[in-house]
Amino acid sequence: MEVVQVLHMNGGVGETSYAKNSLLQQKVITMTKPITEEAITKLYCSKYPEEIAIADLGCSSGPNTFFLVSELLKVVDSVRQKIGQNSPEYQVFLNDLPGNDFNTIFRSLSIFQNKLRKQLGPGNGPCFFTGVPGSFYGRLFRKNSLHFVHSSYSLHWLSQVPQGLESNKRNIYMASTSPPDVLKAYYVQFQKDFSLFLKCRSEELVDGGRMVLTLIGRRSDDPSSKECCYFWELLAMALSDMLVEGLIEEEKLNSFNIPMYTPSPAEVKYEVVKEGSFNIDRLEVTEVNWNAYLDETDLSDAFKDGGYNVTKCMRAVAEPLLASYFGEEILDEVFRRYREIISDRLSKEKNEFVNVTVSLIKP
Amino acid sequence: MEVVQVLHMNGGVGETSYAKNSLLQQKVITMTKPITEEAITKLYCSKYPEEIAIADLGCSSGPNTFFLVSELLKVVDSVRQKIGQNSPEYQVFLNDLPGNDFNTIFRSLSIFQNKLRKQLGPGNGPCFFTGVPGSFYGRLFRKNSLHFVHSSYSLHWLSQVPQGLESNKRNIYMASTSPPDVLKAYYVQFQKDFSLFLKCRSEELVDGGRMVLTLIGRRSDDPSSKECCYFWELLAMALSDMLVEGLIEEEKLNSFNIPMYTPSPAEVKYEVVKEGSFNIDRLEVTEVNWNAYLDETDLSDAFKDGGYNVTKCMRAVAEPLLASYFGEEILDEVFRRYREIISDRLSKEKNEFVNVTVSLIKP
Repeated sequence: MEVVQVLHMNGGVGETSYAKNSLLQQKVITMTKPITEEAITKLYCSKYPEEIAIADLGCSSGPNTFFLVSELLKVVDSVRQKIGQNSPEYQVFLNDLPGNDFNTIFRSLSIFQNKLRKQLGPGNGPCFFTGVPGSFYGRLFRKNSLHFVHSSYSLHWLSQVPQGLESNKRNIYMASTSPPDVLKAYYVQFQKDFSLFLKCRSEELVDGGRMVLTLIGRRSDDPSSKECCYFWELLAMALSDMLVEGLIEEEKLNSFNIPMYTPSPAEVKYEVVKEGSFNIDRLEVTEVNWNAYLDETDLSDAFKDGGYNVTKCMRAVAEPLLASYFGEEILDEVFRRYREIISDRLSKEKNEFVNVTVSLIKP
Repeated sequence: MEVVQVLHMNGGVGETSYAKNSLLQQKVITMTKPITEEAITKLYCSKYPEEIAIADLGCSSGPNTFFLVSELLKVVDSVRQKIGQNSPEYQVFLNDLPGNDFNTIFRSLSIFQNKLRKQLGPGNGPCFFTGVPGSFYGRLFRKNSLHFVHSSYSLHWLSQVPQGLESNKRNIYMASTSPPDVLKAYYVQFQKDFSLFLKCRSEELVDGGRMVLTLIGRRSDDPSSKECCYFWELLAMALSDMLVEGLIEEEKLNSFNIPMYTPSPAEVKYEVVKEGSFNIDRLEVTEVNWNAYLDETDLSDAFKDGGYNVTKCMRAVAEPLLASYFGEEILDEVFRRYREIISDRLSKEKNEFVNVTVSLIKP
């Protein structure tokens, strides 16, 4: 079960890629751009390398796959023009799980490359793209072969559903009613995964290499705080209603849990320090409204409905998990109910995802 | 037109991948194994590198995609065990045109990796796979980033149909009835493409790096000799018959030409020497029967029919070209006629593909 869940969650398969390619994700990349920009600028200016190997981990497939890369290259190109350096050559590694639609990425590559060439203007170095299938909770690249690693909205997904969640019953994630051993089990899995991630990347990055990671997280020290658990609690409500009406089985709901962890900045910092391979350059928290379309103008009517927008985004993420566990047939009903609940809450309160971004350097 | 043709010919799309993954291709890899084996052994033993980056250019998607890689890794692992060295880490770049089905490769990767791990036994280093979309008639990798390049049954495909083939009329490739300017135009395109290929690879390979290339070629100095043109002449016969019966248009047939060149060993040598980046270590010619199943035992009835086997193989290669030029509707009829012609010839004469294999070193 875990394998199937995780296979679906790393941004890859079918509808899931919507979440990674939604306006939400693009907003997050834009919002964290000052941090990314500073990191790649510092990397470039420390040595003016003739080549820069960049890895985007959990790249998914769609417009945002290239959005980040073009932002990074524009920054380097602008700096090197100012100081009159020749352009480096770029190698871009796009990573996601093997189920990701790499064919679509590759087939839209030449359009992107032509566009990029025009944006960067004359003198910019070649940029070579490769696809790297595999879990980032393991080695993916040769030793000392990367200069810059980026990952956005992927690392909050755990490598598997934590062991020992039997007492989490009708919750599907950490919640205010979760017993302490459930919170512990989630945290232990996060520690194990995140620390393995750091270890693998430290082997792959060159000395002086940098990494910028953005995860959905929380500000609070309490892992069951509303700011990080509420969107799953509302989905659990929809599922519980269906249980009461006999539409899903109690045993199924009791054993269903989302393989995710939304850490606090302190928890991220603690793991980085404990693992020991990286120094923290910046560690910041930002917020983005659940409804990414909230402040947009010129919206078609559909997107003016916040309940619709948030449900669409959450469905993209949760659908593969629910489908593989409960079966496809319940999906429409779950999300019809979820949309009702969400619409109600959005009218009463402001809800935001908390993003934790950490900028790291391998000394 | 050229773009579409070439897009289909680099081993990637749909049925075309059959040709690259046929028994024929596997036989060619096995047949040229002594050369490949010697090259990778010499590479490894010259420096005992801690990492080996291998690129397979025109990898297609299917069983043969991994067959070559596993052969190479087994050789290195056997040598390093004998001399008691630690295993290097491997980085494998699988390249083909963007239309290639990389998803299928990536999704069968974990099965292959598990199998490989068992074959190599304990102590073998990790092997990282990446997919590289793009034409090998251009740069694909960073400077000095490869140790070993392999390409089998891909480099006889030109980057485009040569210019100036107007006088080739009812021929679809070089033929005994082709005027001298047609033969010249084909050769000029081959020289341009092959020399660009060598230049790009020389930039990407490290000093001491090696390259083994196998192309369909010929022994004779005459580029229109039967040994390399006959299989296309027979297809031209089928098309001409259909022209006579009004099933295809004269103008279409007159302007249709296959973007391929089957060089002699001397022509390969001449380009390598002229381009100047590589030294030739070995240059050899082998033959493989048109009907790859000829000496196989335990065949199902279908494969006992040589005409069927050869037609299936040639159809895989030629179908995308013919379909994009003449339309899908003629395909069944063309290949019905082609099979009749082939069956007749196979009963009367022995027909073989001539393979030219060159092993190069960047000094």
